[in-house]
Amino acid sequence: MKKILVVVLATIIVGAVFAQDQTIKLPAPEIKGGLSIMETLKNRKSIREYSSKKISQKDLSKLLWAAIGINRPDESKLTAPTAMDKQEVTLYYIDHKGAYLYNAKAHTLDLINKGDFFPLIATTQDFVKDAPAVLVIVSNTAVFGENDSYAYTDAGMVSQNISLFCAGNKMATVPRGMMDKDGLSRALRLRSGEVPVLNHPVGYLK
Amino acid sequence: MKKILVVVLATIIVGAVFAQDQTIKLPAPEIKGGLSIMETLKNRKSIREYSSKKISQKDLSKLLWAAIGINRPDESKLTAPTAMDKQEVTLYYIDHKGAYLYNAKAHTLDLINKGDFFPLIATTQDFVKDAPAVLVIVSNTAVFGENDSYAYTDAGMVSQNISLFCAGNKMATVPRGMMDKDGLSRALRLRSGEVPVLNHPVGYLK
Repeated sequence: MKKILVVVLATIIVGAVFAQDQTIKLPAPEIKGGLSIMETLKNRKSIREYSSKKISQKDLSKLLWAAIGINRPDESKLTAPTAMDKQEVTLYYIDHKGAYLYNAKAHTLDLINKGDFFPLIATTQDFVKDAPAVLVIVSNTAVFGENDSYAYTDAGMVSQNISLFCAGNKMATVPRGMMDKDGLSRALRLRSGEVPVLNHPVGYLK
Repeated sequence: MKKILVVVLATIIVGAVFAQDQTIKLPAPEIKGGLSIMETLKNRKSIREYSSKKISQKDLSKLLWAAIGINRPDESKLTAPTAMDKQEVTLYYIDHKGAYLYNAKAHTLDLINKGDFFPLIATTQDFVKDAPAVLVIVSNTAVFGENDSYAYTDAGMVSQNISLFCAGNKMATVPRGMMDKDGLSRALRLRSGEVPVLNHPVGYLK
């Protein structure tokens, strides 16, 4: 009887931890606070030093929404435009324990893979490893056929949303093109055509 | 004597008009006003209807600075990052009378060519012609060799600055990839490697 109870309890506990890992439900983003758009642009700069402090759920919610969240729920339209409304850009959140796909519709982070993938992103630039998290902007270059430059301009738009959110909210980031794209594509389980275009170490100001 | 006076006066007047056309000196951008960064992102959307009202010098100054102006004068650093700090992106302001290059250092518009180049930008989308101005983002793809995707991501970052400035300041815009790139390259007197990547019709809300 005791054994059964232990097994049941263990199942519940492991299940709860497992469930939490699989999907992180983010609080609704607060559409307030931060600098004005002009002050934000004045403050925009590439920062390569980060506090190791974990990003709060509240700030993470705002950051992901700012990057490529749904700002017009009735139409499922995003904070960043995409060419021909293809919505071919996806955003991954990576901390030192795993990689998650940002689900804009549900405003959740869905676990893709467990592990510390920072070495694949940092390559030779060790400062990246000091950040508590990295956002990776992935674009599906196959969507546009020969006009695949749209996949890159669209990724750039998401990148600037991240840079400006940080500049306006006392956070630090820098857009980077350098990373082990093949290794990271495997870690993120990307499909054919999907390419990691840019990454952003993110954290609070040091 | 009268004749000489007329010639002198005519020279002064023509010279003044000519000087004004060649270089438009913009007022210093006011780093204030507009929505907060989060409200700006909430408000971001593609708008294809514009008031025909000319953009004021004050707003034009802020718009161009926001797009790719110098926000840290000591280092000549820009509101939009560029890969490896190459600063390979240039911005053109086009109204119905001519095309100007934005000189971020001097914060001036320097005349490149006279004429109405809107048909080259609009192609089949007539709504573009209703806008009082169009910004054209040009990137020098030759700077990066094989890694020319940076030229496109960097252009996307400038584009998002324009979209967000408009969203935060009661102005309307949409990023477009469609244009007669060859014709426009000639009109803007672009050099080898320079490509018109995106354009933004801009104006006040209708």
